[in-house]
Amino acid sequence: MPTHFPHLLSPSAPPAMSPAAAPLSQEEQKRVAAYRAVDLVQSGMVLGLGTGSTAVHALDRIADFLRRGILHDIVGIPTSKQTESIARALKIPLSDLDAHPVIDLSIDGADEVDPFLNLVKGRGGSLLREKMIEGASKKFVVIVDESKMVERLGGSGLAVPVEIIPFGWSYTLSKLKALFDLEHGFNAKLRTKVQDDGKEAPFITDNGNYIIDLYFENGIERDLGMISDSILRIVGVAEHGMFLGMATSVIVASKEGEVTVINK
Amino acid sequence: MPTHFPHLLSPSAPPAMSPAAAPLSQEEQKRVAAYRAVDLVQSGMVLGLGTGSTAVHALDRIADFLRRGILHDIVGIPTSKQTESIARALKIPLSDLDAHPVIDLSIDGADEVDPFLNLVKGRGGSLLREKMIEGASKKFVVIVDESKMVERLGGSGLAVPVEIIPFGWSYTLSKLKALFDLEHGFNAKLRTKVQDDGKEAPFITDNGNYIIDLYFENGIERDLGMISDSILRIVGVAEHGMFLGMATSVIVASKEGEVTVINK
Repeated sequence: MPTHFPHLLSPSAPPAMSPAAAPLSQEEQKRVAAYRAVDLVQSGMVLGLGTGSTAVHALDRIADFLRRGILHDIVGIPTSKQTESIARALKIPLSDLDAHPVIDLSIDGADEVDPFLNLVKGRGGSLLREKMIEGASKKFVVIVDESKMVERLGGSGLAVPVEIIPFGWSYTLSKLKALFDLEHGFNAKLRTKVQDDGKEAPFITDNGNYIIDLYFENGIERDLGMISDSILRIVGVAEHGMFLGMATSVIVASKEGEVTVINK
Repeated sequence: MPTHFPHLLSPSAPPAMSPAAAPLSQEEQKRVAAYRAVDLVQSGMVLGLGTGSTAVHALDRIADFLRRGILHDIVGIPTSKQTESIARALKIPLSDLDAHPVIDLSIDGADEVDPFLNLVKGRGGSLLREKMIEGASKKFVVIVDESKMVERLGGSGLAVPVEIIPFGWSYTLSKLKALFDLEHGFNAKLRTKVQDDGKEAPFITDNGNYIIDLYFENGIERDLGMISDSILRIVGVAEHGMFLGMATSVIVASKEGEVTVINK
């Protein structure tokens, strides 16, 4: 699906590298966006540390700046057990939301970003912790490669995740299906994971819950705030992966090496 | 706090016992309401089995009717682990919501009932499973003694429970407090339980979650549907104990032995 962000494609934006250079890989784009975000970090800050392949580049950069003394007195609040162990290995000092209920800046990736800076997050499965920590942040900077930009949430055709209580999960699944009954090409299914013994079992979040993945053929065409409330009203739903009105900036890196910062 | 349900106190309602008889204890009132509800059960039904001291009387009666052959082919769907073990001991055949996504009739107690048959439930801690199972029921009959009738939800001064994810619980608590900031005499606290070793620890629900209890001095004065959505929007909230528009009938027993059935 093509995306239309004219400001990203504007011919007046100076290219960051010569036209002859090879295009950046997706991984390089993620790194470029992450490094730009870490430029916003100041010594003494409490930082929300995101989860996933893009956020890892930010962790690396923060750790590097701490080692080199460019940054000091940083406290990181990890958004998942995975991020906690990576940050610990990188010697980033860590704490939690109970000790630091106000976070200066959170940096995290996203699975989708729409033109209003609404996000889909949580394909990695840590949407609830991310949403809580990023919601407690004065600034929430999202870092993405250009493939994540969509016209409408759900528009990439990939999953919009919903974290649910395991009890009665198939009943909760049926309620989610009923909600999007009339949506053309809609599908929803329990996320599973192949275990060490080769058997398939439900994917389990850090909170001990399950994930139901929603798939939309043409993205979500209805009002997102209403859809959000409708999902949250379903008994058994703990949280969903739409982050509405939460991001304060989105940093996008393109194949051409351009970096665009979109502020709310 | 006095409650005003004129239809419950109407002098034209015939007393079920002679004026000279001793008033019924609260426990007897619960039993009277529960037995009346079990009169609605028919052989072959799938039944939602409630949790708590009033619902236990219904379980006893159903088991008695099964033993005596007055009922047969009943399938019970328990709303808690506690109810599951009691029902199992009473030899009531059991199943679950996955096998029976449509329930004919649920019978359960409530902590509060307002004049519009909205309920507060979950002081026993099983609000999420109760809400899911009772929401899947064609009929949901609530059984209470008259002390449970209130003018406004929260009006008894006892807890309105909210089930939350343990992660970041004190942050979630602060968000709930902020929501009712302007409510005179409002308070909220984590439900705790004294463990076997004498130490206090968070109460844990059947879903592995915590409970935050909300206390209102004069009951909830704002629109309940809006309050419900506001609570559900807080990241970390799994469900709350207000059951709005779910009960199809409420059966109330009074000290005088009167039974009143209020239909929606």
